[in-house]
Amino acid sequence: METVNLSLAEAYQLALRVLTHNGFSAAHARAMVANVCGGERDGCASHGLYRLLGCVHTLRAGKVSPDALPRLEDKAPAVVRADAGGAFSLLALEQALPLLVEKTRRCGIAALAINHCVHFSALWADIEPLTEQGLVALACTPSHAWVAPAGGTRPLFGTNPIAFGWPRASQPPFIFDMATSAAARGEIELHRRAGKALPPGWGIDGAGRPSTDAAAVLDGAMLTFGGHKGSALAAMVELIAGPLIGDMTSQESLEYDAGAGGLPMGGELIIALDPWRFLGDETAQHLARAEALFSGMQAQGARLPGERRYQARPVSEAQGVNIPRALYEDIVALGQ
Amino acid sequence: METVNLSLAEAYQLALRVLTHNGFSAAHARAMVANVCGGERDGCASHGLYRLLGCVHTLRAGKVSPDALPRLEDKAPAVVRADAGGAFSLLALEQALPLLVEKTRRCGIAALAINHCVHFSALWADIEPLTEQGLVALACTPSHAWVAPAGGTRPLFGTNPIAFGWPRASQPPFIFDMATSAAARGEIELHRRAGKALPPGWGIDGAGRPSTDAAAVLDGAMLTFGGHKGSALAAMVELIAGPLIGDMTSQESLEYDAGAGGLPMGGELIIALDPWRFLGDETAQHLARAEALFSGMQAQGARLPGERRYQARPVSEAQGVNIPRALYEDIVALGQ
Repeated sequence: METVNLSLAEAYQLALRVLTHNGFSAAHARAMVANVCGGERDGCASHGLYRLLGCVHTLRAGKVSPDALPRLEDKAPAVVRADAGGAFSLLALEQALPLLVEKTRRCGIAALAINHCVHFSALWADIEPLTEQGLVALACTPSHAWVAPAGGTRPLFGTNPIAFGWPRASQPPFIFDMATSAAARGEIELHRRAGKALPPGWGIDGAGRPSTDAAAVLDGAMLTFGGHKGSALAAMVELIAGPLIGDMTSQESLEYDAGAGGLPMGGELIIALDPWRFLGDETAQHLARAEALFSGMQAQGARLPGERRYQARPVSEAQGVNIPRALYEDIVALGQ
Repeated sequence: METVNLSLAEAYQLALRVLTHNGFSAAHARAMVANVCGGERDGCASHGLYRLLGCVHTLRAGKVSPDALPRLEDKAPAVVRADAGGAFSLLALEQALPLLVEKTRRCGIAALAINHCVHFSALWADIEPLTEQGLVALACTPSHAWVAPAGGTRPLFGTNPIAFGWPRASQPPFIFDMATSAAARGEIELHRRAGKALPPGWGIDGAGRPSTDAAAVLDGAMLTFGGHKGSALAAMVELIAGPLIGDMTSQESLEYDAGAGGLPMGGELIIALDPWRFLGDETAQHLARAEALFSGMQAQGARLPGERRYQARPVSEAQGVNIPRALYEDIVALGQ
């Protein structure tokens, strides 16, 4: 596959030009570009520059605000809500994080609900700012109803990612970010674009039969990872990042989209915990136990989640990123 | 298999006699009996009366206190710790729940850390009292290092269950409780007792090779469900119900056990959220969205987690429970 090499600065400028050219405000465009360029830099093609296509498509379909200003609401001693006003989630997150951190340090645990946002971004990037401040964090969000529950045959859940982060002294954080679907929707779309068959177990066709055809699965239903256990986790995400925070389920998001092909609309829940408020003066001693766990994983050849991202990061910073020429040309065309 | 039928009252009295005969204080015995009889009643044999064997064995091995009184510590506006003093977790949980509920109602989200406890119980029973009060709840606990991380070959993680509960008006709560291992340790022990082969994917032998021999897997390592995603969740449980709350990882618990064959020692983390503090006057309207999600699952034949338990419950109440004669005789012998 022919690729184009871009330095991170070039990727940033290209993405910023595309988004502002299409009408996103400077504040929104900056938050979005930092996210997609961070994904591309860290080797996550499915949450990298490719996402610009969906962002612009969603705007052109009238399904996202290009400039709404987030409104913060202090709901309870340990709860903050940020109403994104129909814009993408990232600016609301950026503006709500300081209050979430303050509440977490004061109460020991706190929650941020981002509401009425359109969501496309990787969750690991949402919680990295919390781990950088020494906090433990969990994040999740519904998406569109693309995934069948275990025992079912039709889409109901979203891909419903769960991300978890743990701070490490003098090391990149331990962060995993996983769809509760067997694969990310973006991965299936990349298979379709590349004309590649899916691994078995990723989805079913419109008749509910197992299928490895990406287009058939996109028209049918994706499956959760890990059978009924993954399905239970997907339901949990629907509940705690949907009704609990007064926002849409994946089914409601898809109905709101009404066939426009826009990105998911709804909420995101982030929970942060402050080890210091649990452990006080014993914090460092107990965090050392976590390091022993990580060493125990690596000693037997198990990878830490996030390792690939942290390995890709300095390589991209030094050598830039390589993206498929067809994708590059699609993106450039959006900026003209 | 020959079975013995016991009414729930008979099961309760038998269990209470066994535990007090072996030296557990009345308060501890009552909390434990309610738990194991609840498991048996709800059709969870692996967390039912069978657990009495492990409880008494752990006591006789000197690995659990029969009578320690829990000590509560108000650590932060949204954090309570309960030190079980080396006893089983259940009495500490019972005594800490009112403060956890109060903090959750005040702050919107709160956490309970149970420390220095020996743990054997099903987590769904730990969070049912929270859902009964209209709260959303999450619970998890490490166990003994029995499970290999994805990509590894040796035990490091516990079976590390995660339970989640969602309150429902006029209905039993939506609660799942799942090991992050492919199966519960107790299920593998029941297969060994019954001389049955394990389904593939549950474990590996001491040389790291896939095995369906229950004894070989008990000597080797169990596997997580869902490959690297289940493994990531297992690691999360180690971290948030271990170092974060100042307690042991599964590896440390097994080392503490030092071959005595006792039950896991360590901590448990429970997080509770109050929908009312997120939603205010709109609570009922948004909880109705959750009901639509449940209906959507059931309409396509997907089961709600917990359905089997709620179906078994009235049957056991009317007809009693049937347990294998060999198990019954083992239990009776412990009471003599």
